[in-house]
Amino acid sequence: MNETIQHLLNHRSIRKFKTDQLDQETINILVRSAQAASTSSYQQAYAIIGVEDDTIKQRLVEVASGQTYVAENGYFFVFCIDYHKHVLAADLASGAVDRTVETTEALIVGAVDAGLAAQNLVVAAESLGYGTVYIGSLRNDAAKVSELLALPDHVVPLFGVAVGVPDQEPGKKPRLPMDAVFHRNTYTNDETMRQLLTQYEEETSAYYGDRTDGRRTEGWVYQMAASMKEPKRTYLRHFLQEKHLSRD
Amino acid sequence: MNETIQHLLNHRSIRKFKTDQLDQETINILVRSAQAASTSSYQQAYAIIGVEDDTIKQRLVEVASGQTYVAENGYFFVFCIDYHKHVLAADLASGAVDRTVETTEALIVGAVDAGLAAQNLVVAAESLGYGTVYIGSLRNDAAKVSELLALPDHVVPLFGVAVGVPDQEPGKKPRLPMDAVFHRNTYTNDETMRQLLTQYEEETSAYYGDRTDGRRTEGWVYQMAASMKEPKRTYLRHFLQEKHLSRD
Repeated sequence: MNETIQHLLNHRSIRKFKTDQLDQETINILVRSAQAASTSSYQQAYAIIGVEDDTIKQRLVEVASGQTYVAENGYFFVFCIDYHKHVLAADLASGAVDRTVETTEALIVGAVDAGLAAQNLVVAAESLGYGTVYIGSLRNDAAKVSELLALPDHVVPLFGVAVGVPDQEPGKKPRLPMDAVFHRNTYTNDETMRQLLTQYEEETSAYYGDRTDGRRTEGWVYQMAASMKEPKRTYLRHFLQEKHLSRD
Repeated sequence: MNETIQHLLNHRSIRKFKTDQLDQETINILVRSAQAASTSSYQQAYAIIGVEDDTIKQRLVEVASGQTYVAENGYFFVFCIDYHKHVLAADLASGAVDRTVETTEALIVGAVDAGLAAQNLVVAAESLGYGTVYIGSLRNDAAKVSELLALPDHVVPLFGVAVGVPDQEPGKKPRLPMDAVFHRNTYTNDETMRQLLTQYEEETSAYYGDRTDGRRTEGWVYQMAASMKEPKRTYLRHFLQEKHLSRD
């Protein structure tokens, strides 16, 4: 097993950073690493906003339910779906791509493109010894984030990535058993899946129990049943449509 | 710059592989690397199908418009959005998460989760000297792919990843200028974006011209205007809804 894979397997989210700031050269290497990822049909349908302004960072903390590490980190990136540049490009070529950009297919391409780019940035950062954390809670109020970052139509924020020098050493939460994620040729039958989930419930229950002196005993199964009971961010579909995306 | 980042920056898609097959240990390491990626709210909302059956691989080639490297590779993975396991888990806990799973938010989470996991798998594979290519054209007929892989409701295929020993050395296509992707605090104004796109048009036009002895002269701007003129895969929204996703 080489060093790159050891870094990947050793990943954990860092939610407390030292005050050290990333220098310009490091930021450039991270963004170049992000850009080097594969992209669907060469579209590069994402944008990265580097948030350096303290006032904006503080407002993003509010959007993210008060998670202070959105502001207190070495650097903060916001990853967006971005088709604005394609609309501008089409216009330069006396064409129009609006109908394409408005499809569910385009939404999926943008989300995947942004994901691949972001993960490259995270892998690059961690290979340099930095810690990282994804901030999905920017979607608590995507309209507010869009306003703060002056995002035009056809651009929507997906998540943030905070990078910095780690100031904590959190444990690694156990992942689903490989067989519950990795299927051979066809999706595994329900009976086997239930067994795997029950086994994972026991494993994660023990994990949480250990870390809370037994105060918390529910594992992944009960956690998901509770946390996913009520739909979240139900305004998103309408918001995307206002931004001229996902209109089909 | 360390070895991990050199690998990231050196990425190019490989579309011709030697016949060497990945061994079981390598497949396990790649899947474990994928699983180690961050995941939204611990949901792990993706599945990976390892396609080993030659008949299925040949049928996937047909879906992918005849791209032979979908079958001819060292191993083929299909990445899916997967909320079936959450539905099963909720049932084990006498709960229900169907309304959550059906939201646009859940679609975005699944697509991003799958993207992060896939990119970790790709980075791991490339660090071991393998080549990789993403196959988005599986979405040409997601219903057929779902049937071949026996995907239940709440699971949809997003893309494939072929891995194998490279049997070609393709060039690296130039990415957008960093300033067209990376914005500071707020999204760059249209005038600057147009300048960057025009500069990129010249760069990519020269790149294609070099590689086709001048037969092809259009760059990224004209390529996007042409390739994105007509919407693609417009059945996807309806298909997702049939699979009990993206119903809001």
